[in-house]
Amino acid sequence: MRVSPLGRTATLALALAAALVVAAPVVIGTANAGEAESTIPAPALDSVAGLREQALASDLGYRITESLTTEVGPRLAGSEADARAVAWAVAKFKALGYDKVWTEPVTFPKWERRSESARIVGANAQPLTVTALGGSPAGTVEAEVVRFADLAALEAAPVGSLAGKIAFIDYRMERARDGRGYGPGSRVRSGGPSAAIRAGAAAFVMRSAGTDSHRNPHTGITRFDDDLTPVPSAALSVPDADQLARLLALGPVRLRLALDCGWDGEYTSQNVIGQIDGSAHPEEVVLIGGHLDSWDLGTGAVDDGAGVGITMAAGALIGRLPQRPARSIRVVAFANEEQGLHGGKAYAEAHKDQVHRHVIGAESDFGAGRIYGYSSSAPAYAEAADRAIAEALAPLGIEHMPGQGGPGPDIGPIAAKGAAWARLAQDGTDYFDLHHTPDDTLDKIDPQALAQNVAAYAVFAYLAASIENAQGFGFGSAPKAEDTSTIGK
Amino acid sequence: MRVSPLGRTATLALALAAALVVAAPVVIGTANAGEAESTIPAPALDSVAGLREQALASDLGYRITESLTTEVGPRLAGSEADARAVAWAVAKFKALGYDKVWTEPVTFPKWERRSESARIVGANAQPLTVTALGGSPAGTVEAEVVRFADLAALEAAPVGSLAGKIAFIDYRMERARDGRGYGPGSRVRSGGPSAAIRAGAAAFVMRSAGTDSHRNPHTGITRFDDDLTPVPSAALSVPDADQLARLLALGPVRLRLALDCGWDGEYTSQNVIGQIDGSAHPEEVVLIGGHLDSWDLGTGAVDDGAGVGITMAAGALIGRLPQRPARSIRVVAFANEEQGLHGGKAYAEAHKDQVHRHVIGAESDFGAGRIYGYSSSAPAYAEAADRAIAEALAPLGIEHMPGQGGPGPDIGPIAAKGAAWARLAQDGTDYFDLHHTPDDTLDKIDPQALAQNVAAYAVFAYLAASIENAQGFGFGSAPKAEDTSTIGK
Repeated sequence: MRVSPLGRTATLALALAAALVVAAPVVIGTANAGEAESTIPAPALDSVAGLREQALASDLGYRITESLTTEVGPRLAGSEADARAVAWAVAKFKALGYDKVWTEPVTFPKWERRSESARIVGANAQPLTVTALGGSPAGTVEAEVVRFADLAALEAAPVGSLAGKIAFIDYRMERARDGRGYGPGSRVRSGGPSAAIRAGAAAFVMRSAGTDSHRNPHTGITRFDDDLTPVPSAALSVPDADQLARLLALGPVRLRLALDCGWDGEYTSQNVIGQIDGSAHPEEVVLIGGHLDSWDLGTGAVDDGAGVGITMAAGALIGRLPQRPARSIRVVAFANEEQGLHGGKAYAEAHKDQVHRHVIGAESDFGAGRIYGYSSSAPAYAEAADRAIAEALAPLGIEHMPGQGGPGPDIGPIAAKGAAWARLAQDGTDYFDLHHTPDDTLDKIDPQALAQNVAAYAVFAYLAASIENAQGFGFGSAPKAEDTSTIGK
Repeated sequence: MRVSPLGRTATLALALAAALVVAAPVVIGTANAGEAESTIPAPALDSVAGLREQALASDLGYRITESLTTEVGPRLAGSEADARAVAWAVAKFKALGYDKVWTEPVTFPKWERRSESARIVGANAQPLTVTALGGSPAGTVEAEVVRFADLAALEAAPVGSLAGKIAFIDYRMERARDGRGYGPGSRVRSGGPSAAIRAGAAAFVMRSAGTDSHRNPHTGITRFDDDLTPVPSAALSVPDADQLARLLALGPVRLRLALDCGWDGEYTSQNVIGQIDGSAHPEEVVLIGGHLDSWDLGTGAVDDGAGVGITMAAGALIGRLPQRPARSIRVVAFANEEQGLHGGKAYAEAHKDQVHRHVIGAESDFGAGRIYGYSSSAPAYAEAADRAIAEALAPLGIEHMPGQGGPGPDIGPIAAKGAAWARLAQDGTDYFDLHHTPDDTLDKIDPQALAQNVAAYAVFAYLAASIENAQGFGFGSAPKAEDTSTIGK
């Protein structure tokens, strides 16, 4: 998962970041006493318990995640493995019996990591474990380090005060089930480099935005304000940040940071889409998915092989039911989420005239921990249906938390065009121990927790695809006839 | 800590390895009903509670460990940091008020690590996290991997059956408080490369001898039988071994292993020794210590910065008492333990004519976990004194475990010449999560647990240095008049 405000998408990204961390009203559209309520037919409600139990007992989601993370491994957007991941997803959807499988192009600038190292020079000479932030330019800088406790402290540094030096933000991210510590943590990553440059720094390093204490630094995309010349920017592992801070407490420290990485042209990847066709209205879809790309350091198991596995499995299990729901289940393995929601934006743009055909959307992109909460953007006329879904999720230990959260990252762009969203909130207590690090590997996933996720997505998608109402799609999607490009603005 | 049988020291090393993992009789010398019993004078027993409480409340051991691991950092034997570590230890002993501080030369072959990488090539191309085993030669090998479940399976491979291939031992080490899983784990490391070469392999890789599941491989010394031509030999991190095993289950796997490392001449380091002189018999010493070198991947916090910090602090606290014990406390920061107990052997050789002046010896080299057990090689005539020490340790949660364990690695060589030894057994449950990895850093140490260790060493050393008897030194050391070079053989 990537949540960081980017320049040209600042509004959206800020909204996403805020949605992740604060409870806020989520109603899209307004209730109208004259409108008919959305409902879920009794046969669907009656049969969903069987689907739930079947999914809980299945290891399909784990096996899909295992297959992706093992056979493709790390899959940085634009790398050789990106194409292998796309081919894997197409083949996997087909093998799982999806009715339709297709790809949609996603074009983005390509960033490469080639090598990276850091070492303290002088009387306390020693290597530090470091990783370039995504988007960093190449460069080798040997200079004195100046420590700042947080982003605000660096932003307050006078222009030119760091001339030729390396700025170091030593901010320690907070651990929380809902991941609320990542807002401030990722803002150091997105905002730190530009603040460093404004103060004159020749390079930027940060304590990783992570909650672990292992020698595995956390990468992630950064950005540079348009008027600035980018400088090498990197994250130290948490123990290395501790070490640097201790040494700085003893006296001046010179660091040699050497990064070889950078942007290199454009690349066209693919959103890979599989669909289980609905029995009555196959053109109307419940959208679920995860993102297919990962950072390159790990094998992208919790970010976001798990999301791909959970949603591919949920769709496949629905496809195997004797009775299909009325509408389709569309599962998207999104391209290049990590470097700017490119897949989610491309999907929203490609389908901007069919926003009204999207019943609701939900992305799994917060690891593989158990789901503890359900919420959605259901308007008043869909509250009964929303409650019915919540009741069907309750046996999985999932609490109805109306009014909380927001859409997953790749759902954000189409939600901004008016599509309804749901949030199946995962326990992220340990997520930022692993997120964007070499340690994001399959062994970190609990198969039982993953199966609970599959069950929740299957129940949610099945019931949402069964919804009936007089409004169109029941969860506040844009009316059919309207120009959807103006919705939600 | 290093425990692995080496060719020319096989007998000793096997004895050490066995001592670590099995309960065995530890009596050196025999009881003689006609001999006077060793005793600890009442004033010493009366005053030791104060020392114990003072040590428990002190952070001195932690601060020494912090200083070494921060200011020197990784300190591979023979590296530039080896000399800095020696200078650090000399200065630290002096700053701590030791009465005598000196160094004794230790010469050994120098091994260097320059670079290392591994990647799967072909349809599942991806990097694997790897580290060269100490002693490995340089070399780049791209070949098919053949998996073996354990060392015995590889040893059973017919001569020539692995011609040109890479042998992979996938043995999973067991977690245990007393570290007994490390015997079989380290035997893979010491014996695997030679077994691979005998079967014709061009290279050797192993699942790390470790109990964690992080992307941090465990290095450690290996050896090659004299009649064999060494091949590149390395350890994969545990998650990478998982990954390789999963891929091998799907079909043939080609791995490219590239190591740049090797032996490069000789180096002379130093055992650094600090002594708190005894009040009555300063030439007679209680020997405690840890080893000053570390592997290069981490900062050597649990292996063995903690041991250095614990024993330096214990000695210093005894030195600050108003009343010194009768005999001296000698603290040794041993050189190059990791690559063959070079410091311990050099100490024993340099002091072979004064073995009888060593009351008893104990090394702290099993991390920074709490001490749970005490045992020694006390013979029958010293049992009462031994019990008195155990009783003084009991308030620290330490159980008397007579008949168990053996001497610490660097005490082994002088114990083999007849010196008595004690074992202050640390809880090693988590030790092999960190041992010999990049993750061996200060943040892994619990300051309270470290203080308990300091208290235990201070109590033990103080009482042992206060012992009185008619035999010389109370714990079975060689008689004064005898040629110690023949003792213990």
